[in-house]
This record gives sequence, C-alpha cells and structure tokens, in this order.
Amino acid sequence: MHDDELVSLRRDLHRKPEPAWREFYTTARIVEALESLEADLDLYVGPEAINGDHRLALPEDSEIDAWYEQARKYDVDPDVLASLEGGYTGAVAVLEKGESPTVGLRVDIDGLPRIEADGEDHEPAAEGFRSEHEAMHACGHDSHATVGIGVIDAIADSDFQGTLKVFFQPAEEVIGGGKAMAKSDHLADVDYLLAMHVGLDHPTGEIVAGIDGFLAVSHLEATFYGEPAHAGARPEEGRNANQALATAVQNLYAIPRHSDGETRVNAGVIEGGSAANIIAEEARLVAEVRGETTELMEYMREKGTRVLRSAAEMHDCDLEVELGAEAPSATSDAELADVVAEVASATDGVERVLERDKLGGSEDATFLMREVQQHGGLACYVGVGTDHPGGHHTSTFDVDEASLRHGVDVLTGTIERVSLERP
Amino acid sequence: MHDDELVSLRRDLHRKPEPAWREFYTTARIVEALESLEADLDLYVGPEAINGDHRLALPEDSEIDAWYEQARKYDVDPDVLASLEGGYTGAVAVLEKGESPTVGLRVDIDGLPRIEADGEDHEPAAEGFRSEHEAMHACGHDSHATVGIGVIDAIADSDFQGTLKVFFQPAEEVIGGGKAMAKSDHLADVDYLLAMHVGLDHPTGEIVAGIDGFLAVSHLEATFYGEPAHAGARPEEGRNANQALATAVQNLYAIPRHSDGETRVNAGVIEGGSAANIIAEEARLVAEVRGETTELMEYMREKGTRVLRSAAEMHDCDLEVELGAEAPSATSDAELADVVAEVASATDGVERVLERDKLGGSEDATFLMREVQQHGGLACYVGVGTDHPGGHHTSTFDVDEASLRHGVDVLTGTIERVSLERP
Amino acid sequence: MHDDELVSLRRDLHRKPEPAWREFYTTARIVEALESLEADLDLYVGPEAINGDHRLALPEDSEIDAWYEQARKYDVDPDVLASLEGGYTGAVAVLEKGESPTVGLRVDIDGLPRIEADGEDHEPAAEGFRSEHEAMHACGHDSHATVGIGVIDAIADSDFQGTLKVFFQPAEEVIGGGKAMAKSDHLADVDYLLAMHVGLDHPTGEIVAGIDGFLAVSHLEATFYGEPAHAGARPEEGRNANQALATAVQNLYAIPRHSDGETRVNAGVIEGGSAANIIAEEARLVAEVRGETTELMEYMREKGTRVLRSAAEMHDCDLEVELGAEAPSATSDAELADVVAEVASATDGVERVLERDKLGGSEDATFLMREVQQHGGLACYVGVGTDHPGGHHTSTFDVDEASLRHGVDVLTGTIERVSLERP
Amino acid sequence: MHDDELVSLRRDLHRKPEPAWREFYTTARIVEALESLEADLDLYVGPEAINGDHRLALPEDSEIDAWYEQARKYDVDPDVLASLEGGYTGAVAVLEKGESPTVGLRVDIDGLPRIEADGEDHEPAAEGFRSEHEAMHACGHDSHATVGIGVIDAIADSDFQGTLKVFFQPAEEVIGGGKAMAKSDHLADVDYLLAMHVGLDHPTGEIVAGIDGFLAVSHLEATFYGEPAHAGARPEEGRNANQALATAVQNLYAIPRHSDGETRVNAGVIEGGSAANIIAEEARLVAEVRGETTELMEYMREKGTRVLRSAAEMHDCDLEVELGAEAPSATSDAELADVVAEVASATDGVERVLERDKLGGSEDATFLMREVQQHGGLACYVGVGTDHPGGHHTSTFDVDEASLRHGVDVLTGTIERVSLERP
Repeated sequence: MHDDELVSLRRDLHRKPEPAWREFYTTARIVEALESLEADLDLYVGPEAINGDHRLALPEDSEIDAWYEQARKYDVDPDVLASLEGGYTGAVAVLEKGESPTVGLRVDIDGLPRIEADGEDHEPAAEGFRSEHEAMHACGHDSHATVGIGVIDAIADSDFQGTLKVFFQPAEEVIGGGKAMAKSDHLADVDYLLAMHVGLDHPTGEIVAGIDGFLAVSHLEATFYGEPAHAGARPEEGRNANQALATAVQNLYAIPRHSDGETRVNAGVIEGGSAANIIAEEARLVAEVRGETTELMEYMREKGTRVLRSAAEMHDCDLEVELGAEAPSATSDAELADVVAEVASATDGVERVLERDKLGGSEDATFLMREVQQHGGLACYVGVGTDHPGGHHTSTFDVDEASLRHGVDVLTGTIERVSLERP
Repeated sequence: MHDDELVSLRRDLHRKPEPAWREFYTTARIVEALESLEADLDLYVGPEAINGDHRLALPEDSEIDAWYEQARKYDVDPDVLASLEGGYTGAVAVLEKGESPTVGLRVDIDGLPRIEADGEDHEPAAEGFRSEHEAMHACGHDSHATVGIGVIDAIADSDFQGTLKVFFQPAEEVIGGGKAMAKSDHLADVDYLLAMHVGLDHPTGEIVAGIDGFLAVSHLEATFYGEPAHAGARPEEGRNANQALATAVQNLYAIPRHSDGETRVNAGVIEGGSAANIIAEEARLVAEVRGETTELMEYMREKGTRVLRSAAEMHDCDLEVELGAEAPSATSDAELADVVAEVASATDGVERVLERDKLGGSEDATFLMREVQQHGGLACYVGVGTDHPGGHHTSTFDVDEASLRHGVDVLTGTIERVSLERP
Repeated sequence: MHDDELVSLRRDLHRKPEPAWREFYTTARIVEALESLEADLDLYVGPEAINGDHRLALPEDSEIDAWYEQARKYDVDPDVLASLEGGYTGAVAVLEKGESPTVGLRVDIDGLPRIEADGEDHEPAAEGFRSEHEAMHACGHDSHATVGIGVIDAIADSDFQGTLKVFFQPAEEVIGGGKAMAKSDHLADVDYLLAMHVGLDHPTGEIVAGIDGFLAVSHLEATFYGEPAHAGARPEEGRNANQALATAVQNLYAIPRHSDGETRVNAGVIEGGSAANIIAEEARLVAEVRGETTELMEYMREKGTRVLRSAAEMHDCDLEVELGAEAPSATSDAELADVVAEVASATDGVERVLERDKLGGSEDATFLMREVQQHGGLACYVGVGTDHPGGHHTSTFDVDEASLRHGVDVLTGTIERVSLERP
Repeated sequence: MHDDELVSLRRDLHRKPEPAWREFYTTARIVEALESLEADLDLYVGPEAINGDHRLALPEDSEIDAWYEQARKYDVDPDVLASLEGGYTGAVAVLEKGESPTVGLRVDIDGLPRIEADGEDHEPAAEGFRSEHEAMHACGHDSHATVGIGVIDAIADSDFQGTLKVFFQPAEEVIGGGKAMAKSDHLADVDYLLAMHVGLDHPTGEIVAGIDGFLAVSHLEATFYGEPAHAGARPEEGRNANQALATAVQNLYAIPRHSDGETRVNAGVIEGGSAANIIAEEARLVAEVRGETTELMEYMREKGTRVLRSAAEMHDCDLEVELGAEAPSATSDAELADVVAEVASATDGVERVLERDKLGGSEDATFLMREVQQHGGLACYVGVGTDHPGGHHTSTFDVDEASLRHGVDVLTGTIERVSLERP
C-alpha cells in the first residue's frame, strides 16, 4: 500500500471510532480492507477470531446494541456485521507463504469514550476527519489497525517464507480483549509475536525495539451494602456504607510496599449515599491494583480484598467484590528485540533506535505475549515514535501520519528477517 | 368546611405534589381554595409572602422552570401562577376579626422527589388519587395545607377576636423555606404561633400538645479539587481527591461528642473520580451537622469545616465548601402547649393527649418559632396523630383522613381559646 | 465530734493518701477512729467488708505489696493491717439503734497517683499536712471518710431509731471498688442509701440534694499482635500492629451517636512498636466507653469491640481485648432527694440548695445505688459544696474544711428524718 | 597478624560492645591495637577523627556519661579515653607509603542495645566471650574493626605504594556517624574508598564484589500537643493528640507510590496519652521514610511532613517535627567492584564471588562513598560472607571467624591492586 492509502484508511477509521467490544464498523471496515488486498488470506471474524467466553469488562447489552445499530447505518458488509452481533468483535487474518515459521502481529483497534477536540489547531478537525461518534481514537489504535493491514500487504509481496497472522484485537482500552484473543486457537503455533504501539512520548523517527515494564493489573469493583436510617433521628440504626468505603479507601492506599518490586493501587471511582440526612445504604468503589510482576499484583489484590472485607465488617455492612478485567505482566524477549533494533536502524526515516523503554502502565497484549512465550516462542512489543500534540487519552491527541510508514517498514522488515534466520 | 371537602381538597393536592420551590400548582390551588371561602381574607402570594432573598437550597433554574411549565398546563389562575415564576412559591392568608391578639398558623406545602407506590394496598392508588407527578406527598404536607384552609374557614365562622394569619410555607423538605418566610414582615406582630405535623408515628386520635427536640441543622457541600494522573505510570503526579474525601469522612464522624447535648453528623452523599486507572481529580461530599441547640450545631459545623480543610490540605487538594440550607433549634412554649393540651382533651375523636414528645430531626418551622419568641410571643409545634401505613418519606406513606378533622378542630379550638384568655 | 476533731482527722488522712486497693494505712486509721468513738459499733474490715472476688482494676501485686510495706511502718493496729494484705481494703461500720429502717451511707477513701503541689499558696503545704506519699487526696476522699465517721458519731448520739451502716469504700478512682462492696452482703437490707461528694464546682454553703447524670462506663484494653519485619528490606513481611491501632482509633471515635442519649468514647492511651525501622509487632490501646444509661454504654462497647476486631483483621493482626473496670448508670430517687433538700434548707451554714445537678462523669457508687434500688430501697447521691482552689484531680486541689460540718449535719439530719417518716 | 591474633582481638571487642556514640572502650582498644603494630601510623582520635558538629542521632548526655564512666574502669589509655569524652568517638589511622593513590577503608565499630543470648549453642557464651555489657555486637562490627586493623598490618608489610587511611566509624547503627566522618577533612584526598560488611545472609566463602541498593533514609520524630480534658464530662474541651496521631499514621502509609523507584515509610513507634478517661494531651511518633534515591527519600519526607502537619491541624493540635538521622543512597562503582571481584576470585578460602547484590536497607557508609565520588574518586561496598546462626540484630547472631581472614585478604589484595594500576 502506498502512503496515501495508509493515510486514507487511517482517517476513515478515525472518523468512526468505537469503544471496547463495540468495534462493529471498525471490524467490518478492516475486513473490507483485507479483502481488497491482492493477497490470499484466510479471515477469521468475530466469534471465530476470539474466544467469546473470555471477554472481560463487557459493557451493558444496551450499550452494545446501541453501537451495533449505529454501525448498521453504514455501508459495510451486512453479513460480516451480523456475525459480530452481541459484542463479538475483532478479526484474525492469516497469510500462508510456507511451512515455517509462524509470525504473529498484534494490533488493537478500539477507541475511547471521549469527545474529540474541534479546534482549528487540531488536525483531524482542520482536515475534516474528526470523529463523528461520541468516542475518539485518542490513543492511536486507528493507526495500529492501519499498520496491521499495511504489513500484510507488504509481506504478501515479499520473499517471506512462513505464515503471518495479524491479530486485530478489540477492547484493549478496558484490558478486556487480550485474554479472549489469547485463548483462541490462533496463538498455538506462533513462533514469534510482535505487538506495536505508536507514540508513548517518543517522537516521529524514533523506534523502541523492546518495550518492558508492563504492570500486571486487576480491577476490583466493591459494593458496600448497609442499612439506611435518618441521620438526625436514629443515627444508631444505620449501617453506614459511606463510612465503610472511606475506611477501605484509607487502608487500600496503605497496603505495605513490597521489596520485590513496584506495586500500585488506586481507588479511582467512589459513589455512595442518597441524601445528606440519610445514613448511606449503599456505596460503590472501583479500584485497581498493579504489580511489576503478576505475583506482585496478586499480593496487592489479596491485601486489597482483605481491606475491603474488614472495612465492611467494621461498619457492619455486607460486601460484594467483583474482580473485573485483568492482565498479567510480560517481558519483551531480548533476542527478538535485537532483530527489531537491527532492522529499525536500517529503515528509512528512522533516526534513533532505543533498545529498551519502560511502559509503566498496563496492556493486555501481555496475554498474547505470555501465551507465545509459554510454548517456547519469542515475543516483543515495539514502540513506533510519532509526534503527538496532545497526550494519550486527551481530546487533542493525534498521530503524525509519517509514522504509519515507519511502523509498516520496521515490522515488515523484522518479519522477513526472522523467517530468514530460522533454520 | 365539611369532612368531605377537606378530603377532596387533600386528594387534589396529593395528586399533584411538587418538590421544594416548585410548588406552583400547589400554591395556586391553595389560593383558589382560599378565595372560594366565605371569608374576608387578605392574600399575600409568592414574592409577597416570603422574603425572596432568604430562600435556601434553591434547585437549578432549569429544574424550577420545568415544573413551572408543567403547572401552566393545569387549570389554575394564570396571574397567580405568573407571580410565582422563578421559584417564589408559598402564600400567607390574613383574616382580621379584631384588634388583638395576632395568632399565626404555619403549615408546609411541598412534596418529595420520590415515586409513589402503586400497589392495590396503597390507598391513593386504589382510590385513584395517586401522584401524577415524579414526586409524592410522602410526608403529609397535602394534609397540612388542607388543615390550614380548614382552620381559616372555621375561625371565620367563630367568635374569635383578633387576627389570624395562616402561613403556607414552601420548601420545608430541604429546610429551605422557613427562613424566607420568617424574614418576611408577616411575623412581626404575631403573638402566638402554632405549627403542626401529622403522623410522626403517633396513631389517629393522639395529639402531642408540644413537640420539642428540634435539632438545629446545617448542610455542608464540599468539593475537593485534585490533579489527575495515570495511577500506573505516574501515581506521584496525582493529587488524590478521593483520598482527601475518605480522610474527611473518617474524621467527620470522629468529631468529639459534646457534653452540652446531642450532636449529629452525616456524610450522606459521596462521589468522586472518573476511572479505575486515574487518580481522582474531583470528589464531592454532601454532609450535614446537627445539634440539640443552635450553638451545638455551630460547634459541629466549625469542627466539620476544619476537618474538610485539613483533609484537603493533607492530600494537597483545593477545597470549596458551600454552607447550604440551615435551620436553628427551637422549643415549644409550655404555656401555649398547655392550652393545646386542654383543648385537645375536649376534642371529639381525640383519645389521647401527650404533653411532650421529641422530634429528633430538624424542621425549619423553627425559624418562624424563634422569630415570634424573640419579640416576646409564644410558639408551639403540635403533633396530630394519624395512622400511616408506610413510614414518613417512604413510597407507601399515607394519612388517615380522619385526622384532618382532628387537626382543624384542635387548632381552631386553641386559636379561639388564646383570644379569649388574652386580657 | 467537734469541728477541730473533724479537721484533725481529715488532715491526718490527707497526709498519707493511698491509691486504689492500697488504702492500708487509711483503712486502719478509719478503724482506729471508729473504735475511739463512744458508740457500740460492729466493724467489718477488709475481706469482711467487700466481696473480694469482685474487685475490679486491681494493680500489680508488686504495687500492692510496696504500699503494704510502707503502711507497716506506721503506728496502726498490726492485726487490722494484716487482715488487709493483698489488697482487701475498706471497712463497714454498723450501728444498731432499733429495728428499722436500715440506712446506708457510702463514702470513698482512696487517693490518686499524683504529686501534691508544694507552693506556699497551697494550704496543705502551708499548714504542714501536705501528702507524704507519692499520691494525693486530689479529689477530697479524705474529707468523705471524715464525714462518714462524723455522721456515725452524731447518729450514735441522736434519737435515730434503726440501723446505720457506713460503707468506707476503696478504689473509687479506678471504678474498682464499688462492685466489690455492692456484692458484699451488707447492702441486702438497706432501705435508704446516701452517698456524698464534696466540691464538683459547687462552693462552700451549697448543697445539691440529688446528683444525676452518672454515665455508665466500661474500660477496654486491646493489644494488637502483628509480625515484625525490617521496614526497609522487607516491608511486605510485616503485620503492622501500629497501623491496626491507628485504624481502630479513627473508627472508635466514629461510632455513630445514639438517639437515646449521650455516649462517649476515648482512646486514652496508645503505645506501640520498638524502633523506627521495624514494622511494629505489638501495640496497645487503653480505651473507655460510656453511656447515659447502661444500655447505651453496652451499645458503645459492642460497637467498639467490633471496631477493634475488624481493625486487627484488616492488618492481619491478632487481638486480645480485656474488658476492664466498669460501672452502671444510676439515678437519685426524687423522694429521698426531697428529704435531703428539706433538711439542707434548714441546716446552719447552708446558703443555697440545688435540687438536681448532673455529674457528667462516672462513679461506682452506682453499683451500691442500684443494688439498693433493685430490692426496693431508695438511693440518693448528695453534693456538698466546698471552695476548691484547684480543680478535682489537679495538684492544687483542696477543700474548705468548713464543709466537713455541712456534710455531717445534712447527712445526719437526713438519716434522722427518714427514720421518723418510716411508718 | 596471624589468624589467632585476629580472633583474639575480635573476641575482646565482642566482650565489651558499646552502642552508638558510646564506643569509648572500643575506640581506645582499637588505638591500643594500632599502636602495637610495627607500622608507622598517624592516628586521629575522637574529635580529630570526626567533625563533631555533624554527629547525628546523639543519645542523652546522661546516657553518654554512664557508658563513659563504665569505660573508665577498664585498663585502657586514660588520655585516649579523655579525648573521647562527651561522645566524640571513632578514629582514623593513616599509613603513608608513597605519593599516590590514597585508598580509604571504612569499617564501623558500634554495637546494639540488645542482650546477647546465653545458651550453650551460642558460641560466644560457650567459648566465654559473651558480652559483659547491656549491649551486643549483633551485627558483626567487632569483626569489621578487626579486619580494619588486620588490613593496615598487612599493607604495612606489602609493596603497596601510596597512602592507606582506615576509618573506624562510630554510630552506624543509628545512621549517626557516617556524616560526621564524611565531613572531617580525611576524605578529601581519597581516590578509592572501600567499605565492608560481613554476613548479610551470604555464607562463609562468598564475596559480593559490589553491594548496591542502599535506600536513602530519614527519620522523623513528631510530637502532637493537644489539650487534656475529661473524656466523660467535657469531651469537647479536649484537643486530642491520639486522634491526630492516628490520622497521621493512616495517611503516612498512604503516601502515593512513585514511578521513579522504590519508596518506604514506617511509623515504627507510637506513644500517647496518660489515662483511659483523659483526652490525650500529647502523643509521639517515631517514623522513617526511605527512597531508592535521595530524591525519592526527599519526596517521601516532604509528603510525610505534610501529612503530620495536616493531621495536627485537623485535630487542632500543635506539632513539633524533628528531622533525625539521615543517610543518602549510593552506588558501588563498577570499575572498583571489578577489581574486588578479580582479587576475590584468586583469594584462598573464597569459593564464590557475586558481582552484585542489593542491600535493601540503609547504611551511612553512603555519606563517605558520595564524598569520595563527588570529587572524582571511586567507591565500593564489599560483602564478606560469613555463616551466621541467628539473623543480624538478633540475640543469637555470631560470625564465623574464618571470614576475618577472607576479609583481610580480599581487601588487602584490592588495595594493592589499585595502587599498581594507578598510572
């Protein structure tokens, strides 16, 4: 694909962003783009691409349905769309060009529930491809999907010998889709897995060969159930869900640090009670814990659960804890990162190659990386620099479209190289 | 008025309940009922009845306007309605039958923002006068307004000598209207003030001559403003509004008890943060403090404000505290309560008279009571028992309409008696 | 006894104060004074005066023994002293002068562990009767014991018909002796019980006929057992007793207020950990809860225990809670207080009689009062005003010795009067 | 020195351990040992060895004096002893054998305030050199001092060219002496600095060439001053120091984690209040904060100070915070550690050489290391394995005396080597 084709595809996806598990138009548009390539691909779509039983952090049905109805208004293949109904989004494209090796490339495709900026200095607005939805590609997944398609096209036309699988993964933003894709059968024979992300504060022309420092993460949603009472007339008859929650929040942040490595905790969302004069009957807390390793995350989760339980007990409340979405930690294999670094150094437009950088946050690509590593394969998460005016997840985020080509070239080059070096 | 007229009026008001500062239909309907009496009344409506500058706990303009528009669809005097626009509700009816004394009767008229039960065992539903609004007379103010009108009618037809003023007060449920009415000029010459409430767990046939134990109350609305940050990647960059709030809640309940009498505190509503992985940027707390005396409430408010301020400071957050609605404490004068008790004992249908009972909660009738007491008058808050199937403020609350007559007779008798005893 | 004898006895007791359960010299000196009266008394001393199994808040044996050894140096009856060994202090003196009624008078005799002031403006220092011990009569119990002896002497010489029992109770300051005395057999036939206290901010010449507002009280001693760990090297291996304690303290004060009446809570003493760099292995908390009624105290104790338990659980600590000393609430009977008031009004030197006043604190005379009331008797706690330069429990506390006579006269008069009025 | 001389010296020091800033006998004994060597040394003792103005964590004068008096009973040079009076302990020995380089060796010499085990299975007890003091060499500093003397002796007898300075540093256990030694003039010309520690869970025969992971540390001692009040009678009059402390402890542990690296916090010692029924007037907290870097420690200290201040403010208490002892982080230079590793690999008795290990805790050798590094020198902290039956700081700690020789040989070899390699 030419640069202008990449740009055009990316802009089309940018115009119609869809949040996690609602990537109906997006998946259908990706399938359409893949089918238009001159390549002999096997396509697995929706329930054939993911293991539907392992979808995490699913939104309400009504939410899913509303976005599905919206997608039906667009000019996309109705059969493809129908197969995605109910939130079975995503796709896997397979290109067989030889026995071995099997190389995987994972790109994510979802947007964020945020309104895009509309100022004249925001290029998508100025150039007419601002989001038409109540959502926004504020993290660059539109360019990830585009690079994925660009790589297949390039590999189809190359000397690569082996099998290439491109994973168009849904629901990364809620760390909800990685597990479903990892638990599909498509990862079983993958020898090398590449994943990619644009930006991350690296400018256009910079490549990070192997990103590390993925924190394992787990969400906890706790609801405290107390007993309402009139706060003036009968304070002693209440069982105060707000007090339970406050005690929990104070003690969650105070879970001991761990000498094995970094841990995190956040009581991100709190909500409780109905009126100033009523002892709160119900209070809700959405929290998350993280760890530099999966074990450290589990340490935090176990301690956090104890805090929630004891805080409920202290104020005589009942407690429901739902463990929500979750992702393990993972590491980029040095052996594979070295190949990326070599290729990148020789790629047009790449001015600087960093061997390593730390993500600091979490990513559910780790589910796929570990799946591959556990059966003996190698995995590497590659950073493709791009100048981005606003920070990730902000309303003024945008990518420098020059980096689409860098992404395609570095990944294609790496895929070709590993097929050559394989005995 | 005959019993059936009282019932009919009460049911009409019950059908169209309106919450605080939105009693447009209600006020107009009261005015209509007053005008239909064979009595020579002076009527003060809306801005002439209350001191608009002292309205507390006003809802958003859009809320006020929506209920105003709804009221305009009903068959009430458009001029009366127009005079209430913008949330200037309530009325004062004055009946002059002699020089002195001036006796006041305060009744409140607002409903609650709650959906009424619709089961067959809920009489208003069974009998066809269930609320047609997204609100409900779940505290009996429909019967208070009805009794107020009944008393004027009875006094007009009695030997009473002096002036009777009936205060149809809006916005009691949010302790928002008492001050506005007390700060009008209408209280200045009142020698005796009576207020009334139905129910309060007293059965039909029981009268409480003088209710006491009004807790002074004040609302505090606090907003903590922090700084968002990614909880995984940059936890140290956040200023955590949820942590500040939790620290505040823990310490609010821990304000020292006071040896001068009862105090209360409640952090009734909490809400903060936007996502599990973001350090909360903003958190909001709706709290209230109370005291057996106004001084005790002020003690709690001062301590509470200190807690909020220090909790914000601890987590490096900014703080906005709005002191919301407020009501003082008050006491029923024994001299006047004794008259009520005597009259009640001789009233048909009254089976039991309690001299005193304790409210336990708060009421902004206290503003009017203190206004009268401060210039040397006497005030008394009378309880009129009524069997109520559900508790006050619940969706199955209802009154036994027999108590309408008890209310009218006891209050009318008391008003007559004080005019006789006055030298 | 003449005034100067009362003064002389009081000063002797003042010089040798002994704290709770260590009143060895004090008891022996009281016995000596009783024996020197021209009255035919039955004396019950030490284990015969109290029920030793119900002694609360006993100090360490070594403490008891040290004070016992000190007492042995004084010129008191060695046999009396020997009978008190091991902390069985106190005495009961019985004077039989007729069949009925039986009237009891309870006075307490212990000092406080505090060093007495030695300034020239402190009368005991100036006049040479300052404490010679590491303790002080900083609450006037020296004058209580003196009044008790004065009353027996006066009654012996009066027309009183019936039986008088004077209870010289130990260990009031730790609410430790009341129960032991109440559980002796001596209360079983008491028809009227009087108790007394000097001062309480009432000046010389003022009598409070019936004191009320005794808060029921209970002590809780909690120890949190955690696991030490190096705070730098292995923070995750600790189980932090200091954190558990801090969580408990925060939540103890936040136990909901109760609409039935006053409650109190105090985490008075805290102590935990061994070094800055070690996660605290053990932490100790001495707390108390109170209530206007015994039920309210029990409400606080049950909630408090829950808080302690949950705080331990939250930080994975073990917990030991010891319920310590305890006293119920009680009420002065109006019937008996009326007699006191009448007598007091006619007593020389008494300038003002208050019918009622509130104690606000706790007192274990309530054990005796309830014992008598439960079998149908009447009880009353009398306040005898005295000018006191320093507050109770401070190092400059002292009594105006004129009030000794007031106490003797009012109590003697009351005892005579009830014997007359008894049919 | 022969092995038996090393052992004998170590056992003598072991018998008379002295805690921080009280190493009177220890310093004098070290000076005696140095003077008995056949070497031409310059000795700097007490105030000449350290900068007295920078002594941190000094004990009470009475404590210092008591240990000084004890030391005066021993057979040591009274002039040396006199020069140490007031807690100016420690020594520096300088051996000049050529122009350059200057190599430093830092050993620490203080014991711990802990009673040594006396079971037969504890070798110092069995062999008769158990501590005779209320202190114990429970961290092996007796062997450190011994190795220091052994190294000087060996270097005196070697081909080494340059200057050797051995720093016998006091008060490491309270991180109190490092700064005072670093701020003396003796470090100014040091080109290479070695420090050493035995054990640290490494067995006899193991050498760690370069230890890292020193956490910067700072102590905070906070005192909350409130107002006492009777918890039953006047709870509102108190200003509760215990509540302030509890709020502080809860929030100290909840200081946000930092993405730049490890942080620590511990509220190790708490103490407050005087009686169950008195609102606590005063409460004291001994805490520490640490960071992987000095900056991270300072982040924690600043946040911690804010927490203390706000907690005091919340409960209307006054606050005094004393910043106590403190040590920075530091890193062993790879260049120097490589030399140690090489030498160790060729040393008799050394079976295993680790290049790096992490300390996890804190050490004030870092003051000296940074002093040297800041003027361009190299520093390295060497671990000398020793089998130790009990853990460091426990009553059964002991060293395998075979490791004395390993320490002397590895350090001597390294010192020789750097003098050869220096151009």
